[in-house]
Amino acid sequence: MIVSIVIFPDFELLDVFGPAEMFGMARDHFTVELVASEVGPVASSQGPSAIAERSLSEIGEPDILLVPGGFGTRTLVYNDGFLVEIARMAESAQFVTSVCTGSALLAKAGVLDGKRATSNKNALDWVMAQGPQVEWDRGARWVEDGRYWTSSGVSAGMDMSLALIEKIEGPDLARSVATFAEYDRKPIDWQSTNDRSLSGLTQSGDTE
Amino acid sequence: MIVSIVIFPDFELLDVFGPAEMFGMARDHFTVELVASEVGPVASSQGPSAIAERSLSEIGEPDILLVPGGFGTRTLVYNDGFLVEIARMAESAQFVTSVCTGSALLAKAGVLDGKRATSNKNALDWVMAQGPQVEWDRGARWVEDGRYWTSSGVSAGMDMSLALIEKIEGPDLARSVATFAEYDRKPIDWQSTNDRSLSGLTQSGDTE
Repeated sequence: MIVSIVIFPDFELLDVFGPAEMFGMARDHFTVELVASEVGPVASSQGPSAIAERSLSEIGEPDILLVPGGFGTRTLVYNDGFLVEIARMAESAQFVTSVCTGSALLAKAGVLDGKRATSNKNALDWVMAQGPQVEWDRGARWVEDGRYWTSSGVSAGMDMSLALIEKIEGPDLARSVATFAEYDRKPIDWQSTNDRSLSGLTQSGDTE
Repeated sequence: MIVSIVIFPDFELLDVFGPAEMFGMARDHFTVELVASEVGPVASSQGPSAIAERSLSEIGEPDILLVPGGFGTRTLVYNDGFLVEIARMAESAQFVTSVCTGSALLAKAGVLDGKRATSNKNALDWVMAQGPQVEWDRGARWVEDGRYWTSSGVSAGMDMSLALIEKIEGPDLARSVATFAEYDRKPIDWQSTNDRSLSGLTQSGDTE
């Protein structure tokens, strides 16, 4: 299966490359591709740039569509052309997934109406405003609602990806990937701390 | 401080972008740059390509040098020109760090002789052979020996990075970054499972 990960200016690095690592390590089963509005380099919120190999308009029926978060989501929720492409790809995808505030983009595109979903716990108020018809879960590490899988913030995308690998290919492969990545998986009901009194970050992508 | 992360063909995605996320989120304190033998796109072991903004020869005295692992290390340990550049940069860096089999490159370059260090627990035999004068630690999540910080496999780079953020800028900033990334930090003595009987992965980058 091909995992088509959407990137855009100011995407969050770990939202993209955590899942890309997990799926990409199981290379006999999954192929990871980065896709964007246009082919070429795209700068992340943290600085480094990655290369989109295909444009959204080239994507027909995705196997697994993954929409990450990042500060760029704040402007993309007003980009109708982008949201129309997201909705079109989501309609035919076998699995529609998101990490962090990526679910705000899916919600604004109408993809999650009537579905259960989650997002970064530090950005939930803004995300929920993008999808009033979505049944938002404030607690889950990730949420599975049929073919719609949405994860909590940043690092949670790795747990969701391992759970999806487990669903599609079985527990042995997911366990092997986690072992070789020396990654300690979190269960679906794991809750991170959410202490807004912590300071020291400004303009930090998803957290503004 | 500038975090100069070295990339090369078949680098491991999470080795690079886990630390890049953690340092990059604290953007008032750290700037992340990707560097390589030549400026331009570099393909990871998992498929996606990132862009090196500067060449190794342009790097004078790095603040924080980070060397990731990945399947590409298997050929780079025979690339004398590359190893000479690594040794040159390491000599003047304030902190010399590695993730996963990146420590094999530091070891082969002679940078870790007489130092304590660690690496991916699934690749330790090969890594240890690259540096017989290194005091290898088979158990640690990461090892701190003065200005030399080396981490265990793949996901461990995030814990080492948060510990280094804590050392340089204090515990509040490190805790804020982990909170916003919804990341559950592992302590320095945390040991991952290491079950070589697990199967399902072939040619999976660092694990061969």
